[in-house]
Amino acid sequence: MTLANFFTLESRDGEARTGRLATPHGVVRTPAFMPVGTAGAMKGLHWREVRDAGADIVLGNTYHLMLRPGAERIAALGGLQQFTGWNGPMLTDSGGFQVMSLAQLRKLDERGVTFRSHIDGSSHELTPERSIGIQRLLGSDIAMQLDECVKLPAERTDIERAMRLSLRWGERSRRAFESAPHGFMLFGIAQGGDVPELRRASARGMVDTGFHGYAIGGLAVGEPQAVMLAMIEEVVPILPRDRPRYLMGVGTPEDMLEAVARGIDMFDCVLPTRNGRHGMAFTRRGPVNLANARHADDPRPLDEESSWPATRSYARAYLHHLVKSGETLGAMLLSEINIAYYQQLMRDMRDAIVQGSFERFREQTRAGWAQGDITPR
Amino acid sequence: MTLANFFTLESRDGEARTGRLATPHGVVRTPAFMPVGTAGAMKGLHWREVRDAGADIVLGNTYHLMLRPGAERIAALGGLQQFTGWNGPMLTDSGGFQVMSLAQLRKLDERGVTFRSHIDGSSHELTPERSIGIQRLLGSDIAMQLDECVKLPAERTDIERAMRLSLRWGERSRRAFESAPHGFMLFGIAQGGDVPELRRASARGMVDTGFHGYAIGGLAVGEPQAVMLAMIEEVVPILPRDRPRYLMGVGTPEDMLEAVARGIDMFDCVLPTRNGRHGMAFTRRGPVNLANARHADDPRPLDEESSWPATRSYARAYLHHLVKSGETLGAMLLSEINIAYYQQLMRDMRDAIVQGSFERFREQTRAGWAQGDITPR
Repeated sequence: MTLANFFTLESRDGEARTGRLATPHGVVRTPAFMPVGTAGAMKGLHWREVRDAGADIVLGNTYHLMLRPGAERIAALGGLQQFTGWNGPMLTDSGGFQVMSLAQLRKLDERGVTFRSHIDGSSHELTPERSIGIQRLLGSDIAMQLDECVKLPAERTDIERAMRLSLRWGERSRRAFESAPHGFMLFGIAQGGDVPELRRASARGMVDTGFHGYAIGGLAVGEPQAVMLAMIEEVVPILPRDRPRYLMGVGTPEDMLEAVARGIDMFDCVLPTRNGRHGMAFTRRGPVNLANARHADDPRPLDEESSWPATRSYARAYLHHLVKSGETLGAMLLSEINIAYYQQLMRDMRDAIVQGSFERFREQTRAGWAQGDITPR
Repeated sequence: MTLANFFTLESRDGEARTGRLATPHGVVRTPAFMPVGTAGAMKGLHWREVRDAGADIVLGNTYHLMLRPGAERIAALGGLQQFTGWNGPMLTDSGGFQVMSLAQLRKLDERGVTFRSHIDGSSHELTPERSIGIQRLLGSDIAMQLDECVKLPAERTDIERAMRLSLRWGERSRRAFESAPHGFMLFGIAQGGDVPELRRASARGMVDTGFHGYAIGGLAVGEPQAVMLAMIEEVVPILPRDRPRYLMGVGTPEDMLEAVARGIDMFDCVLPTRNGRHGMAFTRRGPVNLANARHADDPRPLDEESSWPATRSYARAYLHHLVKSGETLGAMLLSEINIAYYQQLMRDMRDAIVQGSFERFREQTRAGWAQGDITPR
């Protein structure tokens, strides 16, 4: 049975596209970047700043939330949106990726994965059905199927085994999601590592199962960018044109520009906040390391033409001082500056696609990044 | 020669008073609480939140700023207000207190104090003249004289020696300040530990020297509250009625309520931000420890009647989760909630004094604190 479609494709320019995804908590304009609020909070930002920066949707991590404060507790408190105060669309991952990277004593079999919490050592099981159950308790607008993501490089047999398992888990996830109220969505995830025919087989199997939207997982896990883009090019032609496409865990501004050029609609990544905590700003002239002594006496802002107040008003000298002093405000300001830059890039891409000038925008944007930061004074 | 007076006493109710202190960067309504932005930043708050909470003035620490980024650098960047983006009145301390508590290899003599930086071990000298010079470079609206603060309990001879030295340093500070442009202010500091006659001698000496305003230092350094209040009662009658009175490093809400009742106009303290980082909220029903498990399932806000949005909107369960998870947002929200509570207390005291109902307000406020937090559910 075909699932209802909540995505409206609005305009296309080459493979790049804009659209609107209607969720129970509001509309998401695509291409969309989803800031990552791991444990129900955005590190260093108030929700109002995330919203003001232009984010329509944020991501929560099921693994963290199921362990603390717990899915049943969040459900009793009215769901993630009411609990956190974000009150907008939220996507949650399945929990599988973090079980693999954070939990202890993992044991994976056909049924699912058992593990011990990295917080208190308590024992937990995550199956496709339990993952959906948790995400329903959280009240996430978009749930993700449980999958197995293999770190690259990996043996082809391992990649294929994980890909086939992910397809079977996708079918179980869809069955488990059938009782969800109208409007809530479930996305499938294509795996297949860096092997083109496995990527295609995964995409075909996923589309056969049928989901509200389609994600590409298992990329940006150590492979060169060219491999990532090649895998997108294998998968995208197989995906239905009228459904949203989500590239998981990606990425740098350049990754996103190139992925949008290849037909991707949604992204999530911890880079803007994580790099912000480490003194790095994303700008239209490429990344700027505020810890560098060249900024110590520089009264100029990061980018005087930015539409984001903190980017165009705070002196580089002040940001440098905050970073060197380890002041929380430095991480707060650079995290919001980076989230705002990511959202500005999305807005600019959407505008360029609507105007049919995406190729020119892509060249100009790449040229800006290549130009590098303003000359020291 | 009498110094110009920028303080306007507006109303009195018993010993409690309201007034307005005109600084080069704006007017300060008193009684005033000055949040502490140690190194040119408020920990966990944006400047706009400090302003929105109702703070007219903030405090910067000369010791931290002289070491990093350096007073000459801040001067070249336009002064503290422009450097930080606070753009409002700022008071700076003399640096002496932190030299005593943070620096290494201190050596104190008549001339001043030499020390090694706790950041990089570099050697520095702080004299009354250099402290004024640094505070002038910083562009602070209100500079403090260099003094020697003795930790209590202490021997009377030590207390007296430090008090006499502080008086001599006060005279040198005033001479060094004579070239400051009109409108900028210098406050003297009364010392004298917990010895009434030394406190009175210090206050008389300080008033003889003459300053724009008068501070009481060396309290809230380990002595019981009753001793602190008794020392205020020794000093205040000696101070000119038409000048602002500042109780340094104080304190808890109760400390401030009792000090205002005894004629104090200004306060500063790290408690609201420091305790906020440790999961503690100040409320009109006393302190609330958000780390306590009783809040884990409680959807109610900290105080539904608060005028501050975060205080009346975020669920205790969410704040509890943020504190337990060590999320930055927890420290950010509780710091702003506490700063907002301190400012609300100041505003309420000012209103009560103007209305002649300070005594009733004081009783009701103490009763609220004594009542304790709302019943768990």
